[in-house]
Amino acid sequence: MLVIVCYDVNTETREGRRRLRRVAKICEGIGQRVQKSVFECQIDRAQFESLERRLVDEIKVEEDNLRLYRIAELKGYEVREHGHFRATNFNAPLVL
Amino acid sequence: MLVIVCYDVNTETREGRRRLRRVAKICEGIGQRVQKSVFECQIDRAQFESLERRLVDEIKVEEDNLRLYRIAELKGYEVREHGHFRATNFNAPLVL
Repeated sequence: MLVIVCYDVNTETREGRRRLRRVAKICEGIGQRVQKSVFECQIDRAQFESLERRLVDEIKVEEDNLRLYRIAELKGYEVREHGHFRATNFNAPLVL
Repeated sequence: MLVIVCYDVNTETREGRRRLRRVAKICEGIGQRVQKSVFECQIDRAQFESLERRLVDEIKVEEDNLRLYRIAELKGYEVREHGHFRATNFNAPLVL
C-alpha cells in the first residue's frame, strides 16, 4: 500500500527544529521524499503501524501536525507533479 | 473524489511569497486546509482539471513543486491525524 506522510512541525524553538530533523530522518529511512515535508512510502501494514508509532512519539501534539494517508490499492490513486523538487539543506530552518 | 494538494513554493523572493499567497488562495476557494501547504478537496473531475490548470498557471516550475493526489474512491483511503492544525497568519512567511 501507499502511505503519504505530511507534517507541519513548529520550528520556532530549537526543540521544534530538533523534532523536525528527527521526523524527517524517520521518514527518510522508509520512504521517498517528494517535498520538504511530504514523503511517499510503499510499505505494508506492519511497517505502517510502526512508522505511525515512531512519528507520534517524536512530534509534540500541542504544536505539530502529522497526517498519514493510507491508500490500500496502488491503482487507487493518481499523482500529478508539476515543477521540480529541490533537495536542499533540510537541516536548516525551512521556509515554505 | 478526493484530491490532496501539496505544494512547496520557494519564498526566498518577494515574487515567491506572492505566488505562495495566490496558490493558497486558489486552494482555499475549493478545499479544506489541513496543513500549512496541504489541502483536501472533494471535487469532481472537471473541478480537478480546472484546479490543476489554475495552480500550474501560478507556480514557477523552475522553483516550486506542486503535487496533486487524486483518489477516485472516497472509501479507498484512510487518514490518520495527530496533533493540532494551527491556523495562523499564512500571509506571513511560513516556517515549517
